[in-house]
Amino acid sequence: MERTLIKDAKDKIGREITILGRVLNIRELSNVKFLIIQDYSSVIQAVFENEVKAKAGDAVEISGEAREDKRAKGGVEIAGRELRVISACVEDLPFDLSKPNLNLQLATLLDQRPLSLRHPKVQAIFRLYDLLLESYERVMREESFVEIKTPKILEAASEGGANFFKLQYFEKSAYLAQSPQFYKQIMVGVFERVFEIGSVFRAEPHFTTRHVNEFVGLDAEMGFINSFQDVAKMLNKILVRIFEEINERGEEYLKMYEVEPLQVPKEIPQVKLAEIKKIIKEKYHYEIPEGTDIDPEGERMAGRWAREEHHSDFLFITHYPWAERPFYTLPCRDNPEETCGFDLIYKGLELGTGGQRIHLYGELLENMKKKKVGPAGMEYYLDIFKFGMPPHGGWGLGSERMIQQMLGLKSVKEAVLFTRDIKRLSP
Amino acid sequence: MERTLIKDAKDKIGREITILGRVLNIRELSNVKFLIIQDYSSVIQAVFENEVKAKAGDAVEISGEAREDKRAKGGVEIAGRELRVISACVEDLPFDLSKPNLNLQLATLLDQRPLSLRHPKVQAIFRLYDLLLESYERVMREESFVEIKTPKILEAASEGGANFFKLQYFEKSAYLAQSPQFYKQIMVGVFERVFEIGSVFRAEPHFTTRHVNEFVGLDAEMGFINSFQDVAKMLNKILVRIFEEINERGEEYLKMYEVEPLQVPKEIPQVKLAEIKKIIKEKYHYEIPEGTDIDPEGERMAGRWAREEHHSDFLFITHYPWAERPFYTLPCRDNPEETCGFDLIYKGLELGTGGQRIHLYGELLENMKKKKVGPAGMEYYLDIFKFGMPPHGGWGLGSERMIQQMLGLKSVKEAVLFTRDIKRLSP
Repeated sequence: MERTLIKDAKDKIGREITILGRVLNIRELSNVKFLIIQDYSSVIQAVFENEVKAKAGDAVEISGEAREDKRAKGGVEIAGRELRVISACVEDLPFDLSKPNLNLQLATLLDQRPLSLRHPKVQAIFRLYDLLLESYERVMREESFVEIKTPKILEAASEGGANFFKLQYFEKSAYLAQSPQFYKQIMVGVFERVFEIGSVFRAEPHFTTRHVNEFVGLDAEMGFINSFQDVAKMLNKILVRIFEEINERGEEYLKMYEVEPLQVPKEIPQVKLAEIKKIIKEKYHYEIPEGTDIDPEGERMAGRWAREEHHSDFLFITHYPWAERPFYTLPCRDNPEETCGFDLIYKGLELGTGGQRIHLYGELLENMKKKKVGPAGMEYYLDIFKFGMPPHGGWGLGSERMIQQMLGLKSVKEAVLFTRDIKRLSP
Repeated sequence: MERTLIKDAKDKIGREITILGRVLNIRELSNVKFLIIQDYSSVIQAVFENEVKAKAGDAVEISGEAREDKRAKGGVEIAGRELRVISACVEDLPFDLSKPNLNLQLATLLDQRPLSLRHPKVQAIFRLYDLLLESYERVMREESFVEIKTPKILEAASEGGANFFKLQYFEKSAYLAQSPQFYKQIMVGVFERVFEIGSVFRAEPHFTTRHVNEFVGLDAEMGFINSFQDVAKMLNKILVRIFEEINERGEEYLKMYEVEPLQVPKEIPQVKLAEIKKIIKEKYHYEIPEGTDIDPEGERMAGRWAREEHHSDFLFITHYPWAERPFYTLPCRDNPEETCGFDLIYKGLELGTGGQRIHLYGELLENMKKKKVGPAGMEYYLDIFKFGMPPHGGWGLGSERMIQQMLGLKSVKEAVLFTRDIKRLSP
């Protein structure tokens, strides 16, 4: 008999149907068994009065009559007639997937990832993640950005940072990309507006709730801007639309985490780094350590201030010191000690960085000298600035941190399917 | 003055507008200069009767009256009044981007990638590539596949192949993913249907027109299948819709390569490997060398046969020998020397592989023993088969080869933004 998707059972009331799916849960009451079955479309209850042999976790085929049940999700259940186990669990599940919450330690949750991902509340995280990808892909195209894919294996650890993973590439050494920075800038010279969803690798030895060593970056770069404010505006616009879509289509998953509808202000408040440091000190009596741009505690307080002062979950912190930004960052015309860019803070956590880049060849060379960077291994990148690069800028965001903050997850690792951190290379 | 996108100039006939873009080409006729300008939305001609200083390649701002011109693309040109060079070329371009064809050697084309990408005909390749990504993303979701992102750094070179890149991961060694195979199978246990667009790394020492060492895979995996034919059917359905969309929205780019509208049969013809080998020998008098499944020349002839016999650019070659497929491939029930899967051939080139996987724990262990693979480093993967994995299968396709064949490009490297091959790590 042909498969009926669970979501379509409601259209077949009174008829015999066959469903395929996984047993999420079994309850037994005297001689009646209630099985909760999930397939890729939805969830349904099957009621058996005859003896059936199935365990939670089994993949099964169930035939029976679709029967109206006003209390059930979708208004329908199945009066089970026959159950066939397609693929049985040969061991007991290491934890009860039918409980509303798994309540596992983070380490166990990640060690047992292939199974913990089956819990509906964990599934919800990655349904939302799918929605985030889908809406980023769609909204960027609506703004005429072209999707690109750039290489992740690089000849040189060229961005000036130290945190590169090194690999053997045939006879040579190579490095994993820390960002698509150079390539997306090159592509501004081609398509003017580009975006990329791609793997990002950072060999940072941190072991925190906010760092992983491999993540998925949401990058963009655009040409013919007047200032970094054009980049901030575009990002703002895009976030508004992405979050609207997630509210609308992800409501069910947000509710599982008791999250109110998400809000992005039409104009995300901005504050200069020097200023927010002062505010944090005066208002919250916390002094950000010298030499760091802003530490995690400072970010949390900046987030708190944005909420209290501007009723906003988002905040742009702008004008970071030139000394702390990469060589391609445009210094401010009125104060070259500061840069034309921002960090984006969401509920007290940095989601990513954006800003305007240097587009004039001479200025770039000069800035590299000052920063003591390159040019070895970067010639292909530098060359484009000889050939009419328009003023441009862009951003890079961590997709997983976005989901972490959206749902209030304790660690970003809960928002990554399979985490890579300093201690974890598997699963 | 506010920027007008070139595509919108036609709606402002008779009015003064300002456009921003790159000078593609300049022609001079007595005292009149004709500049072809491109922005991210379109291309337009600007006509200047006064003296203007601009070179091909410059980023410029042009003001002038939008004027009807029936011969021009979009029916409009600009009567140029003022031109400001926003960012000038400080050197001459190394080749003429205004010629209809670049006619560069492949090595030069790739060495000069940041600039050769600016040629309209090269741009067209990556406009089509963007369309391919967009339609894959959309069509997969229409079939209820969930988009996932899986790690590219792996603990073990576990798929049995030798062609892994090795890297230093803090104190350990690690490997770059050759495919998302294990992870997408795990995710069948979670969402039943998943897809991934992600980087794939193959340390194959080939130097050919069909191999690159880093590419973008279009992967999918689905549960509760009856046989590998369900996978082939789904892939067929998806290709039909992707190619329809590319025909419709990519017409302009296909025409630049003199390509007829693309066709995918509703039912892609199938032939067993053993059979097509016989046909190739008898019909085309070519003997495929022993020990290879099918060599490139054999693939081309298989493609020729599909065209001649079935009027199809596509062909599924099925039932590869068990000895030549990875350990997770399901052997046929009626002949365990053959496997339940296929290669997909498009115009005589393999685009990728698909099929049904082993889903029973005992059978998988047994097959691994026979293949002398694992289980060290694969425990997390093997474990899922203890917990009710449904029958499942999927595919992995090379996105760049698809574009290569669509346009008839001589090398797949023309369809990669920035190629990685045994000799090329940069740009």
